[in-house]
Amino acid sequence: MSRGGSTREAILQHGVEGAYRVGLGGLTIGDLATATGMSKSGLYAHFRSKEALQLAVLAQAREEFTAAVIRPALAVPRGEPRIRELFERWVRCGLDRSAGGCLFVKASTELDEQAGPVRDQLARDHLDLYETIATVVRGGVAAGQFRADVDPVQFAADLDGVMLAFYHWYRLLDDDLAQTRARRAFEALLRAARDEPHVRNP
Amino acid sequence: MSRGGSTREAILQHGVEGAYRVGLGGLTIGDLATATGMSKSGLYAHFRSKEALQLAVLAQAREEFTAAVIRPALAVPRGEPRIRELFERWVRCGLDRSAGGCLFVKASTELDEQAGPVRDQLARDHLDLYETIATVVRGGVAAGQFRADVDPVQFAADLDGVMLAFYHWYRLLDDDLAQTRARRAFEALLRAARDEPHVRNP
Repeated sequence: MSRGGSTREAILQHGVEGAYRVGLGGLTIGDLATATGMSKSGLYAHFRSKEALQLAVLAQAREEFTAAVIRPALAVPRGEPRIRELFERWVRCGLDRSAGGCLFVKASTELDEQAGPVRDQLARDHLDLYETIATVVRGGVAAGQFRADVDPVQFAADLDGVMLAFYHWYRLLDDDLAQTRARRAFEALLRAARDEPHVRNP
Repeated sequence: MSRGGSTREAILQHGVEGAYRVGLGGLTIGDLATATGMSKSGLYAHFRSKEALQLAVLAQAREEFTAAVIRPALAVPRGEPRIRELFERWVRCGLDRSAGGCLFVKASTELDEQAGPVRDQLARDHLDLYETIATVVRGGVAAGQFRADVDPVQFAADLDGVMLAFYHWYRLLDDDLAQTRARRAFEALLRAARDEPHVRNP
């Protein structure tokens, strides 16, 4: 990688951490200059505007999430094993307070009412994720693991809810059972997709 | 209500709207003074500190949510009708971009890593809501509407996930089907609590 490339990457890693703490809107080129020990004019050479910086930070967070969660999941057999791998890695991402994946939860509520290219990109990133999940579910249907009439996008929305509740109960409520509850909810989703009778609590 | 009381309430209504736009952390006594046409010193007489203001705004949002969602739900027959009323009113709260209920979603991701009395109060408010939901579910079990082994807190966490996903898909993704998907997910939760077989998609 070129020197310019690795400098840019180092700046963006600080950017992802910063955006996680203060929000994408709270990121400033000045604070990033302090964090990286670079001059403000040097940072302006990399990012011409605050919006360009926010988009680059979002792209970095997306790359981190794709590398940590999506690509490894797509490497395991299709259908149920693949959706399980994706779920497990997504949970790990939520447990890790430094992971870029969490930036997406924070940025979603921060930007949902702020029209513009950053919000548009954030929405597109989420839609890409849900389309990936829906595709994995369709693979499970094709493999005969899930019912033919499972709605793959509904599954993606339901899984999104499981993960958002997990994040909420783990991060804000400090609930020791947050992970256990998320696993139970995920297993219930899979059971419903397979059309198995509910397993009674032990 | 005393003049001081109604002035305070007017300030807090501006505070809830402001906090919804800029976050609880972005609220300033200066901005509120501008919005209400009061002097900063007049506002300081009502709220001695930014933290006191944040707590008062949170209390106002909680009161609005309780009046719009919780109290009317508790007025209908216990168990399933009550949880349905709560769900319907909660959805309406999510659809209404001016409702205080939404402040809770925004404040949760804003404050989850910021230790202090405001975060503690926000967590307590959420725990109160989930305990209310769990109690309604227990009422449904006692009435024989739900299975005896339904886990009421798991139900509350699952419903929280349905609502968070609804909010996310409606607000950020502008998904026309967000409300439909939330209803399907809610009906699936109820079916699982009743232990009925899944209804296949038409």
